[in-house]
Amino acid sequence: MTDSITLYGHPVSPYVRKVLIAFAFKGMKPDVIIPVSPFIADDGFKKISPLKRIPVLQIGDFILPDSTAICEYIDEAYSGEKCYPGDVTLRAKARWFEEYADDHIARNAVFGLFFEKIIKPALLKQETNMDTVNTTLTEKLPDIMSYLELQLQNADYLLGEKPFMADFAVASFFVNAGFAGWLPDAALWPKTTAYLKRISANPHYASVTEFGTKALKCRRAELEELIQAYISPDK
Amino acid sequence: MTDSITLYGHPVSPYVRKVLIAFAFKGMKPDVIIPVSPFIADDGFKKISPLKRIPVLQIGDFILPDSTAICEYIDEAYSGEKCYPGDVTLRAKARWFEEYADDHIARNAVFGLFFEKIIKPALLKQETNMDTVNTTLTEKLPDIMSYLELQLQNADYLLGEKPFMADFAVASFFVNAGFAGWLPDAALWPKTTAYLKRISANPHYASVTEFGTKALKCRRAELEELIQAYISPDK
Repeated sequence: MTDSITLYGHPVSPYVRKVLIAFAFKGMKPDVIIPVSPFIADDGFKKISPLKRIPVLQIGDFILPDSTAICEYIDEAYSGEKCYPGDVTLRAKARWFEEYADDHIARNAVFGLFFEKIIKPALLKQETNMDTVNTTLTEKLPDIMSYLELQLQNADYLLGEKPFMADFAVASFFVNAGFAGWLPDAALWPKTTAYLKRISANPHYASVTEFGTKALKCRRAELEELIQAYISPDK
Repeated sequence: MTDSITLYGHPVSPYVRKVLIAFAFKGMKPDVIIPVSPFIADDGFKKISPLKRIPVLQIGDFILPDSTAICEYIDEAYSGEKCYPGDVTLRAKARWFEEYADDHIARNAVFGLFFEKIIKPALLKQETNMDTVNTTLTEKLPDIMSYLELQLQNADYLLGEKPFMADFAVASFFVNAGFAGWLPDAALWPKTTAYLKRISANPHYASVTEFGTKALKCRRAELEELIQAYISPDK
């Protein structure tokens, strides 16, 4: 008997989405999704996630925190479409772009905007820091968009003509900025705006993002049903 | 003609040390080391390192920021001893531990201690924040040591009987805590203290760390000579 695959993490999280996309590349879904929110997780969660971050993958007694480690594990452990390039140099660049997304885009698109405008008032009953929001909108996100605009050159995706996890990571963090009302400006960043639109149309990405958007809007009591419908749509 | 290998980053940096260790595993050294310090780098450096971080690897027009992406690239591009485990599950765990070191141990051992006690007064002419230092010493580092103590179980290293990049990353950040006067307490964390000592004795690690320690202590005018002596000891 094979151990079941459990994923801890709320589907609204862009990091959780990365892992669901990696599974989608393999034609897989986790057997169980436990929608932990890191902002309200108790200290018991530190037993499987020492930094209280999501997602965490558990397969039997193999426990793996960190979205990037999980995505690379899925890519290496299961057959199916590849989420990382086969070429050594391209794979190195892919890792850099994914790190840039996980760390820097997340810090701004997610923590500077989505966290301030959605999580703080709705979940934590705290006030939004408007200085943080303004700096994010007028300085940080424009810097990031300009960087991506330069990187894209004339290719469809960051690593060439095929999308990889780095692209989905980049786009996934902007989805949460979108939850907070941000939209890319096609006049200022035409390539990056077209790029984000192109990724949105990817079927793996689209189904996972739709699930995340529904999870944002649903009532807490409906979340379990939504998760079951995602995991087993035919039931 | 092969493109020369240039590494940007000051040898005192634990992230730079990681890359020098990865090269050492392959019996290699960079052809050129440019000792950039991220704390005083100008905006021009952002052209090759968008987040103004070190190290950056440059080989011809291939430019790669991020120590982990660089170490994995070196491991995959060059023959020699492996710095990452071959087994998929162990490699996934190795990536998690390296991320834990790069992010969390660094935030405390390097930024909470080394940066506060050494870089701020000596390089930036700023005052040490003693609250940060005290929290690091009484809470943060003890938490990290306790986590490592649990992870080590009865093996010599985090992934078993052989040291990999994850182990060198962990130890490398503690070296900078050591520059700021911190020492592990063998009575509280016997396994982790013995583990750090074991890594210190590894010849690849020891030669790179010795170079970093000399770089910390040397005058600015002597640094170039020290780098040349490291790269070409026989000249």
